[in-house]
Amino acid sequence: MEFDHAGIATAEFDDLAALYETVFDAPVVHEEEFEGLRVGFCELGGGYFELLEPLGDDGPIADYIDRQGSGLHHVALRTDDVAGALARAKEADLALIDEEPRPGAWGHDVAFVHPDSTGGVLVEFVEH
Amino acid sequence: MEFDHAGIATAEFDDLAALYETVFDAPVVHEEEFEGLRVGFCELGGGYFELLEPLGDDGPIADYIDRQGSGLHHVALRTDDVAGALARAKEADLALIDEEPRPGAWGHDVAFVHPDSTGGVLVEFVEH
Repeated sequence: MEFDHAGIATAEFDDLAALYETVFDAPVVHEEEFEGLRVGFCELGGGYFELLEPLGDDGPIADYIDRQGSGLHHVALRTDDVAGALARAKEADLALIDEEPRPGAWGHDVAFVHPDSTGGVLVEFVEH
Repeated sequence: MEFDHAGIATAEFDDLAALYETVFDAPVVHEEEFEGLRVGFCELGGGYFELLEPLGDDGPIADYIDRQGSGLHHVALRTDDVAGALARAKEADLALIDEEPRPGAWGHDVAFVHPDSTGGVLVEFVEH
């Protein structure tokens, strides 16, 4: 496994995308609307910042911003076997948000592990 | 620049280190005491989880845990020129926590940018 991206909940996609390109050399290389979000991937070395802007008032990212403001929402780890990573997490008694891989943004397979069982960190497994 | 690590504030270093090794294939490859913290680097692909456990009741990591519990504290971007990265951040009107590189854990040079100017994300520049 390796780091794939840090997911950032934001209400200011355009400003943040411009800033990350200018200051971190991380231009947006892919953008789409996905499950009520504007999602952008800012490429940085072999990984990404993933910008997540709610298109409406509902959903987990809008709730997150309401609760604690913009900021670091999750960390995604790249694997070539999301199902295997989930099986290992389950065997270690981690609480799974997704019992099986599901389609994520950019056509990737993803699955999330609950932060209560990973030291408060929302972890995503992602397979390109 | 590329991702170097995700910094995790935790009160349970040993449990988390064991878990990250088992579930994420991320063993501790370096550990030290630094500025009132037990700091551990769990290697993951080309990057790390950095575990930060307060050794006392004071300091920014202890305050963070008191305020919001264990979790994602910062993201570190690797560069071969922290001073240059800081200069570029300053030019883009970002608020700097460190005006100049300073010694960090593991003998690295580091500098932090204030989350207020990066979408709520505490960003560290790190030079190995």
